[in-house]
Amino acid sequence: MALRVDLNSDLGEAFGVWPMGDDPAMLDLVSSANIACGFHAGDPMVMTRTVRAAQAAGVGIGAHPGYADLQGFGRRPMALSGAEIEALLAYQIGALKGIAAACGTVVRHVKPHGALSNLAAVDAEAALAVARGVQATDAGLILLAPAGSAMVAAGRRLGLAVAEEVFADRNYDDDGNLVPRSRPDAIIHDSGEAAANVLRMVTQGLLRSAGGKEIPCRVQSVCVHGDDPQAVTMARHLRDRLEAAGVAIAPLAGVV
Amino acid sequence: MALRVDLNSDLGEAFGVWPMGDDPAMLDLVSSANIACGFHAGDPMVMTRTVRAAQAAGVGIGAHPGYADLQGFGRRPMALSGAEIEALLAYQIGALKGIAAACGTVVRHVKPHGALSNLAAVDAEAALAVARGVQATDAGLILLAPAGSAMVAAGRRLGLAVAEEVFADRNYDDDGNLVPRSRPDAIIHDSGEAAANVLRMVTQGLLRSAGGKEIPCRVQSVCVHGDDPQAVTMARHLRDRLEAAGVAIAPLAGVV
Amino acid sequence: MALRVDLNSDLGEAFGVWPMGDDPAMLDLVSSANIACGFHAGDPMVMTRTVRAAQAAGVGIGAHPGYADLQGFGRRPMALSGAEIEALLAYQIGALKGIAAACGTVVRHVKPHGALSNLAAVDAEAALAVARGVQATDAGLILLAPAGSAMVAAGRRLGLAVAEEVFADRNYDDDGNLVPRSRPDAIIHDSGEAAANVLRMVTQGLLRSAGGKEIPCRVQSVCVHGDDPQAVTMARHLRDRLEAAGVAIAPLAGVV
Amino acid sequence: MALRVDLNSDLGEAFGVWPMGDDPAMLDLVSSANIACGFHAGDPMVMTRTVRAAQAAGVGIGAHPGYADLQGFGRRPMALSGAEIEALLAYQIGALKGIAAACGTVVRHVKPHGALSNLAAVDAEAALAVARGVQATDAGLILLAPAGSAMVAAGRRLGLAVAEEVFADRNYDDDGNLVPRSRPDAIIHDSGEAAANVLRMVTQGLLRSAGGKEIPCRVQSVCVHGDDPQAVTMARHLRDRLEAAGVAIAPLAGVV
Repeated sequence: MALRVDLNSDLGEAFGVWPMGDDPAMLDLVSSANIACGFHAGDPMVMTRTVRAAQAAGVGIGAHPGYADLQGFGRRPMALSGAEIEALLAYQIGALKGIAAACGTVVRHVKPHGALSNLAAVDAEAALAVARGVQATDAGLILLAPAGSAMVAAGRRLGLAVAEEVFADRNYDDDGNLVPRSRPDAIIHDSGEAAANVLRMVTQGLLRSAGGKEIPCRVQSVCVHGDDPQAVTMARHLRDRLEAAGVAIAPLAGVV
Repeated sequence: MALRVDLNSDLGEAFGVWPMGDDPAMLDLVSSANIACGFHAGDPMVMTRTVRAAQAAGVGIGAHPGYADLQGFGRRPMALSGAEIEALLAYQIGALKGIAAACGTVVRHVKPHGALSNLAAVDAEAALAVARGVQATDAGLILLAPAGSAMVAAGRRLGLAVAEEVFADRNYDDDGNLVPRSRPDAIIHDSGEAAANVLRMVTQGLLRSAGGKEIPCRVQSVCVHGDDPQAVTMARHLRDRLEAAGVAIAPLAGVV
Repeated sequence: MALRVDLNSDLGEAFGVWPMGDDPAMLDLVSSANIACGFHAGDPMVMTRTVRAAQAAGVGIGAHPGYADLQGFGRRPMALSGAEIEALLAYQIGALKGIAAACGTVVRHVKPHGALSNLAAVDAEAALAVARGVQATDAGLILLAPAGSAMVAAGRRLGLAVAEEVFADRNYDDDGNLVPRSRPDAIIHDSGEAAANVLRMVTQGLLRSAGGKEIPCRVQSVCVHGDDPQAVTMARHLRDRLEAAGVAIAPLAGVV
Repeated sequence: MALRVDLNSDLGEAFGVWPMGDDPAMLDLVSSANIACGFHAGDPMVMTRTVRAAQAAGVGIGAHPGYADLQGFGRRPMALSGAEIEALLAYQIGALKGIAAACGTVVRHVKPHGALSNLAAVDAEAALAVARGVQATDAGLILLAPAGSAMVAAGRRLGLAVAEEVFADRNYDDDGNLVPRSRPDAIIHDSGEAAANVLRMVTQGLLRSAGGKEIPCRVQSVCVHGDDPQAVTMARHLRDRLEAAGVAIAPLAGVV
């Protein structure tokens, strides 16, 4: 059977009159869309447009919940209790499910955003709150989370379907963690290098760290960005290389 | 068969640290709770607490969506397009459904709030947008709307189950419309008079206007308020009088 | 003495991570900047950046207050009382004055935004509330308002310095009012035509309507937009034509 | 010369339709009001009402800026850069100055709120950002900050007038720091004990810790709360005891 992997991207991150990214270009390339739910970005109209576009493109729809911090785009760490995180998830997942239902489609997965995701990737308590929020709202949703993170463990512990993702444009250290953005080698700018890395992970199950170490990994999804024209080009190149190597791009539900 | 009527109240209108009304007292008296969805009042935590309390009290849960105007409590008229109203409804209904699911229960009805409700009660286009928003999100929801309003007509036209409500503490004019709040006789302050009016509507199908005219009406629900201790007392008196007259208080699903 | 006119533009309408327009290009062309104050657009960081850039470019700084409606960009009509409008103005003007003071500069004028401006341009009561809000907060501020509008009258009545503006890219009807955006001839797309119109108003004191009628006018400021590259080009062309005709571009304080 | 001390309280923490505390009662008791500026509480109308009431009561007006977190009442820690804190202060101080000007009065002091205050009390960098924000906006403002905190040091370093405050209803540890709210002896519930503690600090310059140790201190202001009827009673008792001991209650400007 052919190898399969999901390509996901954060979409619908416009707000009101303010656009963001090139959603139409990305919807041609990815198999899953993580759609902002109105707290860090997005609003009912933006969500409706994005759900309809994803639906038309045959791309899987997921909720991308974040902190209530429009001004900071959900990237500023905030101290929330576990109960607050659970309610935040239930509210935002529900809101997107409402919009999706009104568009005649359904939500398939959840991927936390920004500072909430960063916290839940390393903090077991926050990870459990995220997983509880997903499970309580809809136990059939797939939790999409950074490979090897605390969220992956928490989701599995609660019996959720979990998809592990890697970032096409980021370097990893020898422990399999993301190289922090503060370091000069955090970001991969070369399309070819990014594609080679992803191919190695998907076809051989090996993550090669920035230091050259090879670490076994199992990846169900690859996150690509569409913030600027160069990012779209990199995503397109990655998709082409994966397909040329015989890897099928498939929505999360077909991969997990 | 015994006469039945639903008693509904707007609940969960706290926000963050700011409380509002006496929700526990009202949950003892009503059969349906209209729960604010985070736009004019309410937040994920307040909604969670309110849904759990309604669930524990055996009270039917409904969404109470309003304009995105916390500072004005959704009472300031705003000009939204039909598409904006539909998306607003889908988002807020979905959000409450998410919270309800996380609490192990379901949303049964929708009652628009404040300036949105005032507009949709008289404007056919806005009424249709509301009805479309409800139907598209979940065609099984009951639309709770002012008796004889444009929303009632729009809901029926789209095939929704519709419940018509009257207000226990408000006077009506000879055309069956609410006496505007600007007039001195808008509000009924006497518990006995309010109860007698409601009893006449429920048991005899007659609305007696402020001018003394009797107008045929069919009422499925009565809205009561719990903003202050006097309002709670009036609601309690009404419930007692209805039950003494052999009228059963039943959730919307049992009345429509 | 040479003819003078102010060129003004709405700037600082970014929010959080979302950019808007080409502020640097416009700051090279205009003499007055109307800076969003955090309610319809802008936030403390965006305001700080914009004030600093205007200061560096020698451009006069003004407040551009709007309704509390980020999602609708302050363009959706809302029903506020006169007292609410006054407080809204005092708050937003004060906020920009705070930011300006922290940057070592001062606010010179106020120009209401969007739906608030549209209302106050034609509604005498709203116009008076705007003028009162400006005067009470700082009676030394210049009120910048559409030529011939109710705001101009209200500002003069309260003794404020008032600057009347016309829109370079809009047609006017035979009564001197803007042709509504719903009509096909609302917008002037040709740079040459726009510049000729403005030159006629500034040098001859004559506004030529879309219907060809010439109406006497006295204009202190011309509003130009910078939303897209074409708008920036049109603004540059207008400035060149004005200067070629010997008209000096000067900040409001030098014109009123 | 008679001993003097300022009594301050957090006021104007209502929002929209939601009231908070008993502002009129507190305005009879305190000499300085810390007024919320619309980010964690307050809005232009609430601020206007509160400024007018403080003005009528002859109480000094101060800004009480907080994080942009209405739902969390500014009590949830958020990670902001120094530049963000400075802009946050400039915006909120300016906004209150605008409202105060529109009411014909002026802002005298600044006291940060909630999680922002907690951070700046112990973090030198955040404290400096707060002091810079105050100084840049208006170098004549008094910075009101917890006695012995990093904010006191930062304010003095920048040459601001600084007032050190203690909390009437809180216990201190042997190092002069507040006993954390997590400990059972954090709060003083007895009016007599609270008054005796404050008297000792004001008249003898001695802070007696929960453990009985006496620490030299110099206090210019005492913070009292008005959240519930008991708190108002405690504040009234404190004022009576201070006056009976010959201590004059005077606004910050008369104490610093």
